[in-house]
Amino acid sequence: MPYVNIKVTGGAEAPTTAQKEELIKGATELLARVLNKKPATTVVLIEEVPMENWGVGGESVPVRRMKAAKPSP
Amino acid sequence: MPYVNIKVTGGAEAPTTAQKEELIKGATELLARVLNKKPATTVVLIEEVPMENWGVGGESVPVRRMKAAKPSP
Amino acid sequence: MPYVNIKVTGGAEAPTTAQKEELIKGATELLARVLNKKPATTVVLIEEVPMENWGVGGESVPVRRMKAAKPSP
Amino acid sequence: MPYVNIKVTGGAEAPTTAQKEELIKGATELLARVLNKKPATTVVLIEEVPMENWGVGGESVPVRRMKAAKPSP
Amino acid sequence: MPYVNIKVTGGAEAPTTAQKEELIKGATELLARVLNKKPATTVVLIEEVPMENWGVGGESVPVRRMKAAKPSP
Amino acid sequence: MPYVNIKVTGGAEAPTTAQKEELIKGATELLARVLNKKPATTVVLIEEVPMENWGVGGESVPVRRMKAAKPSP
Repeated sequence: MPYVNIKVTGGAEAPTTAQKEELIKGATELLARVLNKKPATTVVLIEEVPMENWGVGGESVPVRRMKAAKPSP
Repeated sequence: MPYVNIKVTGGAEAPTTAQKEELIKGATELLARVLNKKPATTVVLIEEVPMENWGVGGESVPVRRMKAAKPSP
Repeated sequence: MPYVNIKVTGGAEAPTTAQKEELIKGATELLARVLNKKPATTVVLIEEVPMENWGVGGESVPVRRMKAAKPSP
Repeated sequence: MPYVNIKVTGGAEAPTTAQKEELIKGATELLARVLNKKPATTVVLIEEVPMENWGVGGESVPVRRMKAAKPSP
Repeated sequence: MPYVNIKVTGGAEAPTTAQKEELIKGATELLARVLNKKPATTVVLIEEVPMENWGVGGESVPVRRMKAAKPSP
Repeated sequence: MPYVNIKVTGGAEAPTTAQKEELIKGATELLARVLNKKPATTVVLIEEVPMENWGVGGESVPVRRMKAAKPSP
């Protein structure tokens, strides 16, 4: 009965249909291999969240990337 | 203080406004009936997830449906 | 493929095994009745959270209840 | 390693980019101040949910607001 | 920035420490392989939920297993 | 109607009752200050997850801390 919820950035970075298929397959196989869970009852749910809605280190991802790209003087 | 999160397929299969109203009402009544929870503090949150983002049995829902519809030779 | 996550207070207020069974049955029937979802693929997950871990109005539930029980002078 | 998930109404009420930045900063500072958690590993995730998908008291938010705005006879 | 939340049955069926390590490693590698996500910012969170708190097909998992084990007359 | 879910390490690192009260107050004030949300309908939910159930960089938190504490030869 496992439930796997994968949250990733959406928009321009959203996974393609083929990538979603691979994520679902891979997560299901992981649970089968490690915990012997039956694939038939493993549910995977992928959610796409806009990049500016993610934060780490107190900053949104776009701000972090902008700073990483710009060398400090 | 219960919190009920209902995730369903969105897009063409998304619930209508009237159906969302029924889900909210029904979930709140369920918590009141079974656990005697006050409706005033029961929060219900419906989230719509694209069909291709759901997987079970290691396959996305669209792939499963396609296979179910097509008889094997 | 719906997924219903019900979070309720645990500990002394935790639902009994019979009540959990009723919540699972009721949530599954709700999705079948309102959205015509197949019970076979409706997953319900009940999570119990200690009362002091819930807050509303900027206060934890135990503090709110204590204040509600104590008449102001 | 804290993880903070903030769900708010989206659409016309969605937070602006600047407000999201403030939410991420504020939640990260809260965890640092109260629990001494390192900002570098605090993840914040903001999710926007349409107003009609939220319910409380057995009614969706739009229905509640409509009733609150309309005086009863 | 991906976030992977894995919910599995706990109690007698809870994953061991070594199995949790494998789930964390496997989920992080999956996101790196399929979406080229940096392991350094991939967060995995495993939550253990008592078996009687899971339901599918309108029944809790223990009831389903009991029925599956008992042949009908 | 905001909903804030804070997941932190539990066990020996679990927040005290007073710290939980501060998290609830702080998160509610944050939503009021940034988005003008009414405290009366802001729900905060703190969940405690065992340290070995968290992973980042493909390793569980205890393994990461052990490595960080041990200087490489």
